[in-house]
Amino acid sequence: MRFSSPLGRQEGRGAALRRRPGQLIIVGFAGAIAVGTLLLLLPIAASSAPASFMEALFTATSAVCVTGLIVTDTPVFWSGFGEAVILVLIQLGGLGVMTVASLLGVLVSRRLDLSSRLVAAESTRTVGLGDVRQMLVRVVILAAVVETAVALVLAVRFAVAYDEPLGRAVWHGVFHSISAYNNAGFALFSLSLIDFVADPWICVPICIATILGGLGLPVVLEVLRERRRPGRWSVHTKITLLMTALLLAGGTLFFLVAEWDNPATMGTLDTGGRILASFTQSAQARTAGYNSVSTGDMHTETWLGTVILMFIGGGSAGTAGGIKVTTFAVLAVVIWSELRGDPDATVFDRRISPATQRQALTMALLAVAIVVLPTLWMTALSPFTVDQILFEVTSAFTTTGLSTGITAQLAWYHQLALVALMFIGRLGPVTLGTALALRASRRLYRLPESAPIIG
Amino acid sequence: MRFSSPLGRQEGRGAALRRRPGQLIIVGFAGAIAVGTLLLLLPIAASSAPASFMEALFTATSAVCVTGLIVTDTPVFWSGFGEAVILVLIQLGGLGVMTVASLLGVLVSRRLDLSSRLVAAESTRTVGLGDVRQMLVRVVILAAVVETAVALVLAVRFAVAYDEPLGRAVWHGVFHSISAYNNAGFALFSLSLIDFVADPWICVPICIATILGGLGLPVVLEVLRERRRPGRWSVHTKITLLMTALLLAGGTLFFLVAEWDNPATMGTLDTGGRILASFTQSAQARTAGYNSVSTGDMHTETWLGTVILMFIGGGSAGTAGGIKVTTFAVLAVVIWSELRGDPDATVFDRRISPATQRQALTMALLAVAIVVLPTLWMTALSPFTVDQILFEVTSAFTTTGLSTGITAQLAWYHQLALVALMFIGRLGPVTLGTALALRASRRLYRLPESAPIIG
Ligand SMILES: [K+]
Ligand SMILES: [K+]
Repeated sequence: MRFSSPLGRQEGRGAALRRRPGQLIIVGFAGAIAVGTLLLLLPIAASSAPASFMEALFTATSAVCVTGLIVTDTPVFWSGFGEAVILVLIQLGGLGVMTVASLLGVLVSRRLDLSSRLVAAESTRTVGLGDVRQMLVRVVILAAVVETAVALVLAVRFAVAYDEPLGRAVWHGVFHSISAYNNAGFALFSLSLIDFVADPWICVPICIATILGGLGLPVVLEVLRERRRPGRWSVHTKITLLMTALLLAGGTLFFLVAEWDNPATMGTLDTGGRILASFTQSAQARTAGYNSVSTGDMHTETWLGTVILMFIGGGSAGTAGGIKVTTFAVLAVVIWSELRGDPDATVFDRRISPATQRQALTMALLAVAIVVLPTLWMTALSPFTVDQILFEVTSAFTTTGLSTGITAQLAWYHQLALVALMFIGRLGPVTLGTALALRASRRLYRLPESAPIIG
Repeated sequence: MRFSSPLGRQEGRGAALRRRPGQLIIVGFAGAIAVGTLLLLLPIAASSAPASFMEALFTATSAVCVTGLIVTDTPVFWSGFGEAVILVLIQLGGLGVMTVASLLGVLVSRRLDLSSRLVAAESTRTVGLGDVRQMLVRVVILAAVVETAVALVLAVRFAVAYDEPLGRAVWHGVFHSISAYNNAGFALFSLSLIDFVADPWICVPICIATILGGLGLPVVLEVLRERRRPGRWSVHTKITLLMTALLLAGGTLFFLVAEWDNPATMGTLDTGGRILASFTQSAQARTAGYNSVSTGDMHTETWLGTVILMFIGGGSAGTAGGIKVTTFAVLAVVIWSELRGDPDATVFDRRISPATQRQALTMALLAVAIVVLPTLWMTALSPFTVDQILFEVTSAFTTTGLSTGITAQLAWYHQLALVALMFIGRLGPVTLGTALALRASRRLYRLPESAPIIG
């Protein structure tokens, strides 16, 4: 896959990123996972016996791909050094994908501008080192602001309400804030957030960090820049914000209805507690992966609903996974327009280009195949039920990290499959989406049309 | 939904069909189900105690919608009269949907011709009584030829190899031939075809009838008409034949691999028997619904693979259900073209029109929703596992009729849901597909384009 035009081939600093950003991010992530695996293999990283190769590889991949699936109990198995390694990998992975995806988004929009204006200025066809620096600065500042604010609130709460010593409270605040903003979902509590299910001072800040990280950089930057003129927001930003609100509300309602009476999850809470727990699950399912009620004890139908939320995921060029809310929205708009009889699919007074429609279709159906086929294979060769396997596979591919509890018990080759799914799920959509959008090839002649019967 | 242009409003014989064929077929099917229910409620229809309302309604719907799901054991529960009523309902339902779908196909292709030639001749905008007569004659002749031939082979085999008295052998031959050609899957053996799993003289003729009925009338007629000039076949015919061959072969391979060692299904057969059993399952899963091995004893992953085959279904304007092989192929071609970077989706040297692409997308994703949402609801409110429910719901919606064995044990409201799914699955795709294809509305102005980030 090539991302620059054949004309833009001068070598020099930043040439690699200009030429093949998709390849660069894949190599970068693989490198980070390799280094992380080595560090986690060190005896100093574990609190008692050192990690096995699979434990280290799985944990490093899960951290770099900001997934949060685990084969070991994070606070019990890893030492403080191990936890710090995991935290650094999360921060690198989350901000790395955010930066590269945003740069790729810039590249795509420049290319689209270019083709619509029929101009061929060299400067608009690549992203240069200046762009990279500027984007990194924005990514880091935004992360620093959000993570610091949330870490502060959490640290105070841990210290005041839970009597944690100051150092421990700060470490817990920092770790969970970073893990939340990067949508990683790693926790330093063996039960994730279950002990805090009814505590809004823990759950709400974590959900806010989750949502902000998951919206994606382009949306956050545009809202900040044009905060007084929402009318000027791009269609992408409007769709992302609207879908996020709808999915948060719809997900909350779904969990409330599905788990209202389940004593093993939220059945013993009061109404306020149930609403908070449902909201937290809704926010975390796309795709941060903390849980404040026991995922393994949910009903099967709740798992299926969660699978749908995980699959949709969050915003583009953020730390969330899944097919992305814009992909889902584009498909919904196309279907709605088709049912209404509109020849154009329109949303917020804009036509969705046929190319974008095809990209969304390709992304969604490939994602379905990537979830369904491993589910078939793993169901055939494991003692677990298909709903457990489907949940785990979707969680890995969408880098959500929620678990019915079977990941640690899977055979090594199935754990390896989850490692591959996390990697593909983290980098596949962004590199594929960019590659499709950047395609500029045109046929020299067009074939006659045909309309086979549908349905 | 209106199917004729506002200009074509002269009243008279056949005006209803000219104006609202979609409504007509829905009313016709509902009427046939109502009459069938009443007939099956008669004491004479049952072999001992008369049927309950739900038993009669479910069986009548399953027969008219050529599904084959059952809540009673057909040969045990129903009398000879009851079986005859079921057979008539199957023949009416199968040939009815084949005729109307073919007429709608004619209407669509005339309309497409019309708009591409920019002509407005009145005669090309509707289907008249002459068309209806001509189509009915073709449908009936084709059915009579195939059904008679297959019935003969089956009757001889039942008489010679299984020592059935002549009258009984003929009745078995006729019943299963009609049930197979119409893709209904009703059997007069409590174990469906399990006792004949290794008998090619039973399984192969039934599969041939199944496949011919499932190809769809437009394909069969075109192949017969142009049998010496395959180069002149339409894209629709080429896609249908190619996909049917690929899915038959792929399905056979899948069942062989998935069930090779399962002693409860085909593990005790020799290699030839396993291949025949796998081929039969592959042919029956899209969407005739006979089974020569025990569906309930298959592995979960085999169920999932069967769900995919059922979902794809057979050819358009035939007796098969599902989203149809052309819909599936169009989506596959669009994705493949997108991945290759072609701005056009092309197949057999023809571009697939953007309108057809959108229709395929709409059909497939609506079908996913219609399967997934009832699965969620029924899983929540029944003691059965999600894979059993998913299988049963897909089987009903695609009018396949294969069963894990739970249908008879479902609560009445879930059986009612299956009744609704059979009805929607039988008539939804053809009426929706036609309605979408006939849409001629055009926007007077076009909005500016927008390309939200995908992935
Ligand atoms: K996650
Ligand atoms: K059937």
